[in-house]
Amino acid sequence: MPPAYPTPARITAVDTYDIRFPTSRELDGSDAMNPDPDYSAAYLVLRTEPTGTGAGLEGHGFTFTIGRGNDVQVAAIEALRHHVVGRSVEEVCADPGTVNRALVGDSQLRWLGPEKGVMHMAIGAVVNAVWDLAAKRAEKPLWQLLAEADPEWLVSQVDFRYIADALTPEEALALLRAGREGAAARTAALRERGFPGYTTSPGWLGYSDEKLTRLARQAVADGFTQIKLKVGADLDDDIRRCRTAREAIGPGVRLAIDANQRWNVDEAIRWTRALAAFDPYWIEEPTSPDDVLGHAAIREAVAPVRVATGEHVQNRIVFKQLLQAGAIDVLQIDAARVGGVNENLAILLLAAKFGVPVCPHAGGVGLCELVQHLSMFDYVALAGTTENRVIEYVDHLHDHFTAPVVLRDGHYQAPTTPGFSATMRAESLAEFAYPDGTFWAADLAGQPQRTQEPRHPRHKGAVA
Amino acid sequence: MPPAYPTPARITAVDTYDIRFPTSRELDGSDAMNPDPDYSAAYLVLRTEPTGTGAGLEGHGFTFTIGRGNDVQVAAIEALRHHVVGRSVEEVCADPGTVNRALVGDSQLRWLGPEKGVMHMAIGAVVNAVWDLAAKRAEKPLWQLLAEADPEWLVSQVDFRYIADALTPEEALALLRAGREGAAARTAALRERGFPGYTTSPGWLGYSDEKLTRLARQAVADGFTQIKLKVGADLDDDIRRCRTAREAIGPGVRLAIDANQRWNVDEAIRWTRALAAFDPYWIEEPTSPDDVLGHAAIREAVAPVRVATGEHVQNRIVFKQLLQAGAIDVLQIDAARVGGVNENLAILLLAAKFGVPVCPHAGGVGLCELVQHLSMFDYVALAGTTENRVIEYVDHLHDHFTAPVVLRDGHYQAPTTPGFSATMRAESLAEFAYPDGTFWAADLAGQPQRTQEPRHPRHKGAVA
Repeated sequence: MPPAYPTPARITAVDTYDIRFPTSRELDGSDAMNPDPDYSAAYLVLRTEPTGTGAGLEGHGFTFTIGRGNDVQVAAIEALRHHVVGRSVEEVCADPGTVNRALVGDSQLRWLGPEKGVMHMAIGAVVNAVWDLAAKRAEKPLWQLLAEADPEWLVSQVDFRYIADALTPEEALALLRAGREGAAARTAALRERGFPGYTTSPGWLGYSDEKLTRLARQAVADGFTQIKLKVGADLDDDIRRCRTAREAIGPGVRLAIDANQRWNVDEAIRWTRALAAFDPYWIEEPTSPDDVLGHAAIREAVAPVRVATGEHVQNRIVFKQLLQAGAIDVLQIDAARVGGVNENLAILLLAAKFGVPVCPHAGGVGLCELVQHLSMFDYVALAGTTENRVIEYVDHLHDHFTAPVVLRDGHYQAPTTPGFSATMRAESLAEFAYPDGTFWAADLAGQPQRTQEPRHPRHKGAVA
Repeated sequence: MPPAYPTPARITAVDTYDIRFPTSRELDGSDAMNPDPDYSAAYLVLRTEPTGTGAGLEGHGFTFTIGRGNDVQVAAIEALRHHVVGRSVEEVCADPGTVNRALVGDSQLRWLGPEKGVMHMAIGAVVNAVWDLAAKRAEKPLWQLLAEADPEWLVSQVDFRYIADALTPEEALALLRAGREGAAARTAALRERGFPGYTTSPGWLGYSDEKLTRLARQAVADGFTQIKLKVGADLDDDIRRCRTAREAIGPGVRLAIDANQRWNVDEAIRWTRALAAFDPYWIEEPTSPDDVLGHAAIREAVAPVRVATGEHVQNRIVFKQLLQAGAIDVLQIDAARVGGVNENLAILLLAAKFGVPVCPHAGGVGLCELVQHLSMFDYVALAGTTENRVIEYVDHLHDHFTAPVVLRDGHYQAPTTPGFSATMRAESLAEFAYPDGTFWAADLAGQPQRTQEPRHPRHKGAVA
């Protein structure tokens, strides 16, 4: 006899892909710590049974890396496979937090972190794939699923372990309930106008002053109200480049600077003060992302220049301390560094509690696609404002995604496609899988490339 | 014509091994976070050319893991191979810091950390293998090589990036120079008496009170002046077990307690205070190893109980902050978690600067073998004392090493075999390689084990 109720579909497989783009060969930009990145993704697809409740959908997720080690990241994702294969699609979509807890709580794999580095990024990729699946099943873009969710349910998605001294579940619930006031109007505004972005394109270290000037002016003409410059390799160069950029954009556009962890604490203070004359809006990653006390010392010394960090901050516990110590003015979440949407919910709630604006890191492969959803949720249903909030934008590799970001007048347009915008085009997977994809197979065999032109005109790799 | 000088031998290969011991099947102990570890090692051997200067030696190193994910750790070690293969044995032995800097500085691999988790532990394994090679080439046990080294050379082995605000090279040099005073007498004392250990064997969570009492008394009879109890699963149980242990050892033996990161900050304070009546010497890993400010809050609240942590602290930058914030009374280095001997030199120097005693974490696979060298160097040539300093000891898996630790009257005896005591027996590699070693091949084929008795009588796995 057939079952009286539809059988729930199960997750049948976690397929992984080592995707690498040869961005170091046509590099338009670089920074003080990352001279030659090959933008890569350790990519996965959750497959589901073809019949039953929730059948036939796929969940996509990935970790962004910059080349070597992408295979290690893929191996880490594969080590998590047994936690999701066999699970009911319906159940994981109803409660992605159960997957998050199972992955973070694996006592043997936990030894490899805990909650940091390769293993934690792999957890983030799998958890994000579950959220992609959940949003597709709900037939909503992820930002909307989150913004419309019950505050109680959102609180249930957060792991308060190690952060309860700074944020209790009760406080989180109160923040989310307050965030619902006026949410409908903000959703309408978001759909109309989008969420403000800023661009890093003019500011790569290797550019001539002429190119910097031209691209900076272009950024302002494109509607951006903030640009960013890489600094940290040579102080005299940085002084000249900051002056050049400030002259190009005028006093009314914000100029952020980014040292990519290049400095010790005292160097960061000295260098930032030397650039203060050009009114930098923030100094980003002045030192190690692990150094909470160092950031606090820098912030005190370089005010009114704001201190920003986060793209390499490993988890909610370090973000908690950056906030507790008053170490940052700007919190830069990354969608694919921490343990996925669940942990980023915790981090957004911590930022809201401490009143620190969130300005996400993006660029790389697909980071813009992912993180826009988190900022849009933050605007609609938590922080309630876009004031002093901008999402980084870098114009590369978007064409590899089936639902790439859309920028208009310097604003990210609200996604409408169901899911987390994480799905790469099948052609891109086939071409750039390493080492067997068509691009790499030809390349590694020493054959001439099929074309000297970049396959995708937007391949302009540089780490943001 | 043959070269006028001997050709220096080169490193020819990095051979890797996924070694796993089935400790979860015969588990004598467990803790609040690690119920079923399969003690494992991601193991590597640096091979060298058979002729030339420095020929024929091997460098051995490993990362300790507790089972699943050991393959990920092996993959991470393999991702580092290109940095060492082809290097001159003579050059890397003369300056292991060049290898350390090359590995930590790989800009693409750095993205996967930086300096934390899987990738950083892999760096530690390779760097430690280089030190093993260097000590074998010098025909000294590593502790002696370090203790006899020029202070200037030792300072050149330390990466001061991100710690110079707490410790300058000049300060490090002064500490090492001062450490040389009286070193000969301390070397003699070390060779005579050894370095004090403490034992975790009585205190695993699952033991009956009778067994706890018996093993605690045995530990005292064996010459140990400190034992350790796992806590954190159930407060009533912990109160009873602490009382039982204290009654067994009397007031004069130290009783450390270890929560293995089980608590939030407020729980840690409450729980530790509830156990204070039994005069615990330290509370170990009360909360997340990432939580510097949390440890500072706990320390302030639970004094005079000391706060200890370190076995999961990811790098020198977090240790620096634990010291700057006054967050710990006892610093617990681990030989195979951070970036190898070079980073542990930095951490030992930081501890000396701040006057905090170092009591290493050990146990697992080979951690006792490695870390004894670092404590013995610290005693002879840096801290200059063993007061309030003890190395953890757990009696398992030592027989797999060619030069296992030797305990006498509760003291680690100074190793005399050249190297870092990191070399595993060839038979053990052949038997416990996963999944193709003889043990696992039989096991995975579902065949009965050749014997129901543990192959090695000391297989008593439990995470220390």
